[in-house]
Amino acid sequence: MVNVSVIGATGYAGAELMRLLSGHKQVRVAHAVSKSFAGQRMSSVYRSFLHHDYTLEEMDADAISRDSDVVFTCLPHKKSSEVVPLLLEKGVRVIDLSADFRYKDADVYAQWYNTAHPAKELLCQSVFGMPEIYREKIKKTQLVGNPGCYTSCAILALYPLLKAGVIEKNGIIIDAKSGTSGAGRNEQTALLFCEVDETVKAYGIASHRHTSEIEQEISLAAGSEIIVSFTPHLLPIKRGIISTIYATPKADEAGIMAAYSMYEGEPFVKVYAQGVPEIKHVAGSNNCAIGFVLDKRANRLVIVSCLDNLIKGASGNAVQNLNLLCEFDENEGLNDTGWYL
Amino acid sequence: MVNVSVIGATGYAGAELMRLLSGHKQVRVAHAVSKSFAGQRMSSVYRSFLHHDYTLEEMDADAISRDSDVVFTCLPHKKSSEVVPLLLEKGVRVIDLSADFRYKDADVYAQWYNTAHPAKELLCQSVFGMPEIYREKIKKTQLVGNPGCYTSCAILALYPLLKAGVIEKNGIIIDAKSGTSGAGRNEQTALLFCEVDETVKAYGIASHRHTSEIEQEISLAAGSEIIVSFTPHLLPIKRGIISTIYATPKADEAGIMAAYSMYEGEPFVKVYAQGVPEIKHVAGSNNCAIGFVLDKRANRLVIVSCLDNLIKGASGNAVQNLNLLCEFDENEGLNDTGWYL
Amino acid sequence: MVNVSVIGATGYAGAELMRLLSGHKQVRVAHAVSKSFAGQRMSSVYRSFLHHDYTLEEMDADAISRDSDVVFTCLPHKKSSEVVPLLLEKGVRVIDLSADFRYKDADVYAQWYNTAHPAKELLCQSVFGMPEIYREKIKKTQLVGNPGCYTSCAILALYPLLKAGVIEKNGIIIDAKSGTSGAGRNEQTALLFCEVDETVKAYGIASHRHTSEIEQEISLAAGSEIIVSFTPHLLPIKRGIISTIYATPKADEAGIMAAYSMYEGEPFVKVYAQGVPEIKHVAGSNNCAIGFVLDKRANRLVIVSCLDNLIKGASGNAVQNLNLLCEFDENEGLNDTGWYL
Amino acid sequence: MVNVSVIGATGYAGAELMRLLSGHKQVRVAHAVSKSFAGQRMSSVYRSFLHHDYTLEEMDADAISRDSDVVFTCLPHKKSSEVVPLLLEKGVRVIDLSADFRYKDADVYAQWYNTAHPAKELLCQSVFGMPEIYREKIKKTQLVGNPGCYTSCAILALYPLLKAGVIEKNGIIIDAKSGTSGAGRNEQTALLFCEVDETVKAYGIASHRHTSEIEQEISLAAGSEIIVSFTPHLLPIKRGIISTIYATPKADEAGIMAAYSMYEGEPFVKVYAQGVPEIKHVAGSNNCAIGFVLDKRANRLVIVSCLDNLIKGASGNAVQNLNLLCEFDENEGLNDTGWYL
Repeated sequence: MVNVSVIGATGYAGAELMRLLSGHKQVRVAHAVSKSFAGQRMSSVYRSFLHHDYTLEEMDADAISRDSDVVFTCLPHKKSSEVVPLLLEKGVRVIDLSADFRYKDADVYAQWYNTAHPAKELLCQSVFGMPEIYREKIKKTQLVGNPGCYTSCAILALYPLLKAGVIEKNGIIIDAKSGTSGAGRNEQTALLFCEVDETVKAYGIASHRHTSEIEQEISLAAGSEIIVSFTPHLLPIKRGIISTIYATPKADEAGIMAAYSMYEGEPFVKVYAQGVPEIKHVAGSNNCAIGFVLDKRANRLVIVSCLDNLIKGASGNAVQNLNLLCEFDENEGLNDTGWYL
Repeated sequence: MVNVSVIGATGYAGAELMRLLSGHKQVRVAHAVSKSFAGQRMSSVYRSFLHHDYTLEEMDADAISRDSDVVFTCLPHKKSSEVVPLLLEKGVRVIDLSADFRYKDADVYAQWYNTAHPAKELLCQSVFGMPEIYREKIKKTQLVGNPGCYTSCAILALYPLLKAGVIEKNGIIIDAKSGTSGAGRNEQTALLFCEVDETVKAYGIASHRHTSEIEQEISLAAGSEIIVSFTPHLLPIKRGIISTIYATPKADEAGIMAAYSMYEGEPFVKVYAQGVPEIKHVAGSNNCAIGFVLDKRANRLVIVSCLDNLIKGASGNAVQNLNLLCEFDENEGLNDTGWYL
Repeated sequence: MVNVSVIGATGYAGAELMRLLSGHKQVRVAHAVSKSFAGQRMSSVYRSFLHHDYTLEEMDADAISRDSDVVFTCLPHKKSSEVVPLLLEKGVRVIDLSADFRYKDADVYAQWYNTAHPAKELLCQSVFGMPEIYREKIKKTQLVGNPGCYTSCAILALYPLLKAGVIEKNGIIIDAKSGTSGAGRNEQTALLFCEVDETVKAYGIASHRHTSEIEQEISLAAGSEIIVSFTPHLLPIKRGIISTIYATPKADEAGIMAAYSMYEGEPFVKVYAQGVPEIKHVAGSNNCAIGFVLDKRANRLVIVSCLDNLIKGASGNAVQNLNLLCEFDENEGLNDTGWYL
Repeated sequence: MVNVSVIGATGYAGAELMRLLSGHKQVRVAHAVSKSFAGQRMSSVYRSFLHHDYTLEEMDADAISRDSDVVFTCLPHKKSSEVVPLLLEKGVRVIDLSADFRYKDADVYAQWYNTAHPAKELLCQSVFGMPEIYREKIKKTQLVGNPGCYTSCAILALYPLLKAGVIEKNGIIIDAKSGTSGAGRNEQTALLFCEVDETVKAYGIASHRHTSEIEQEISLAAGSEIIVSFTPHLLPIKRGIISTIYATPKADEAGIMAAYSMYEGEPFVKVYAQGVPEIKHVAGSNNCAIGFVLDKRANRLVIVSCLDNLIKGASGNAVQNLNLLCEFDENEGLNDTGWYL
């Protein structure tokens, strides 16, 4: 039994993490921190916590470090960097769900987040928390930078293809669509039910921050710098991302499939032999499903990648990282079949 | 490890049952029967079964009986009665999710289903599968009649109040609203997305079959025959039921709460000390949540009861019954916190 | 051509009113006032105003009075009472969409709104703006108190029955369900997409303010004081109300239908000879549709009443009142068939 | 007053056309034909037709020709070709909403629809019914081939850019997302509420028939053959299309805007000076809204185009064509501001 704490337990990613931890057989939640709701019960903020409840607390780095083996930080970017160093220096291991520790180059962060990186000295030790690429490094690190939701969906689809050289490096387009929980529990007009329901919109065209994370990782796969077009869209659904990705093929179907054989044995990535996934194939699970169609007429490879933004795109992946840190079965607490309904 | 089979694995209740069983640590699925999809993989019908997959088979009562300790039948009413006797006589225990074995009186069935009961000789041995009322009988029976979704939601709210005599027997009104999965996976115009989305409708006013199930059980609680007004509504959501129930009170708040103390220790029923539940408090879980407001001005008790129609209202409750039959921990495979998101 | 102004043009009711006025052949919008967005274009706040656009202005009672024949006030309660007297004394006619001028008794207002009525001297001259009951009075008044959305839905269903004495006065229950636009364009966590989607909740049980409006009007119909149980619910849809109403019948079907003959010739009320309406029958139109089932077994009359909360429940009804004030065809600008899709 | 008839009045496009015609001041509906519901009232099939009702009839080409100036055919492809020649030879003008008369080359039709064109001799006289391109030809023709929904959304965005030569002809990608009404009122499992809700899926990748219509028209604009990648997606909303289109720019923002000046004076196309449209800007209206972002970093032009698939994408555009045929004000019956809510 391992002791974990969650800082930022009442945002959507934090609450989802608490939900997943409530079903994890090998962890005990030592502290659940919520600035907004300290002193209240988790079940008073999210009444679905009917039978697994927690007391929400103020931030207390000393108590958390003393009582925890691993800490999850679910805070906005920059806020994470105020807390994480305190925890690291007390010897605790940290899985950070913000953007702060996903980057190898502080200048890239500065450019896309319009602010100097607040803890750039830690970037050399943090590991990008994608088990499919960095499993062994994750097991040994003290600091995991858990990837973004759009990021994971795109990288899992593209990494093997660029690694194997079966698509061109130029001209990659990622048209991504996400459920509204990705925008967090923020009181904004644009997130009201009546504004989101029965419509779809593109946003952050040519400027969304996840672009830089995607480019970092797929450039590493390709061995040279890649620039992508990334367009996120807001969907009138709660959870799930579908990314439709366009690339110029350099191989036939068999070659594409061979590149994806990289995922053989992966517990949470499924490449379809036929057809493409949709969001409901993965919603509620830690799975990422990938399929593709090779359009010979237009000389285009169309890849469709889906995951649940709150699970494989955030908190489930964070639990997977916990399992790696603690040498648990990688499936522990994550073994669910998707909901479909 | 117990061997179970599911007959009717590809309807919505059957598929949900398969999903729950895929996460149950103490069962193995021996046979998954689907008339429509025999020979295919479960993952080709519901692609969410990415990592836990099953082969769908034709019905074969001999093989099923031979290989199963417990069989779940997820068939339409009347169809169940064709299959269940075959299984029972081979000594298998059966949890039936149809209406066929919920009734104590075949005449009531005949009246509400417009057909003679097809296996009335079995009614004396079947047990109404509501653990909160019949736990001990369920443990010992060979045949469980798993209750209907609207039924469970209403009975759990009303049973303790009538048992304790804290509401009048006359004038009870149940205004219930259900997600569309309750109507099953049927190719009907009325169930198309464009027909259900952005609207709500009442249906089966004064004639819905679940009325008779509710009346049977709450009459037993009251010790005399009760007639209710029951109005179901179709909601543009996938899962969940909320029942708003109106009764004339005979006690104050403390008296009502005292009646509900019947649920102390129940793993899946939660009575709110304050406020009332909504569907998202229970969706995705086996929980039923109940709250009430005593309107002194109008001399009315307003009770709100919520559950997930596919879980506590069908397949989760069936797994709970399985756990009772097999003397497993009653929480096994059902211990999830609701999804909220 | 009549000149109208709208004060509060950018809330949901105000924006819907602007939309309806953009299609009204006999009005010109003189001033569109929005405190929050003064100086901007309507099309920058609601980009659907692509071809009919307006400049939003600060409140200027002098200019508005000078340039307008009729003014619509779409303000919160109490705020309306600060503005309406200024307009009235300059001789302008006012259609107020707040609660302030719907009441005959300032004490009732004080009790339900927890505040003294801010302009009680005007209540003797204001007319409750329901054309089906007060058409002739509306034509002649200077001040119309446009009814609430739940209110109209319930009163239209109940008024004729109580007037004709075909139901009991006691024990009336109104179980109402509304689209989320009824809660307005307010930045509240409870109105976020992820909080409203895929759930339904009851709120304001035994305490919702519209109760008092309903009781006022149906008591007048009955000739004695009536107390109702009214339970509103929030639906995951944008617009529309469905009210399921329970009463004890004193007549048979023919008697009920005869009572509803009061609506013969009404342009916007439709009583179904058979079956009951659902929200999509009326969404997008100024229609209220009513149907009923007489449950002889339970001795209960179940009435279902539906309207679009933004149109017949607010802005469309306000335009209908404008048409009466100005002696236009009562259908002008409102003659649309519902959307269905 | 012009007499029109509608053949296929009870599919979703037909019903929407009936709705629009019910508000058109200069037409009378002579015959409304529905094979499935002949003999019934429109209001019994779509109960929203509360105040504007029609009797549905069997197909009778003689009566229709005798009584109609213009006939709308809302039939599946191939079925249209059985009916349209009969009407044409009696001198009636026809606006066909199927695919049959949209093509200039019968071989293209044969290739994408897997069937020989059933009336290829008519293709030389039919006019592609897009007023923004073929207004003058439409006015004079006897046969209009009303464009497809995805088609209109894409062509309106791309035609001016290719005509002006401000984008490359190669590498155009159209990632389109549509509401479910686009799939028609068909009793298919894949269109059930529970299958469509809370998910998004890509379908018809590299093979959707609308590809060929888009390519036909934009090739004409460009003066040489263009091949596009077109990926449609199914959205959990009732109506509306958003197309996100990727092209390689050959001009700066000013050059792009200049190309779009082609739409100056167009009653139903709006090009945004800033920002991009979303579906709710146009739902419920005959408008197509277009915006773009020039991504200099990636050397990519991202265009977003939105329309209501049932209105500008089908029935509203058909009414616009009617207005052209009959020399009515082009706005007649179509002048509505979008719903937003």
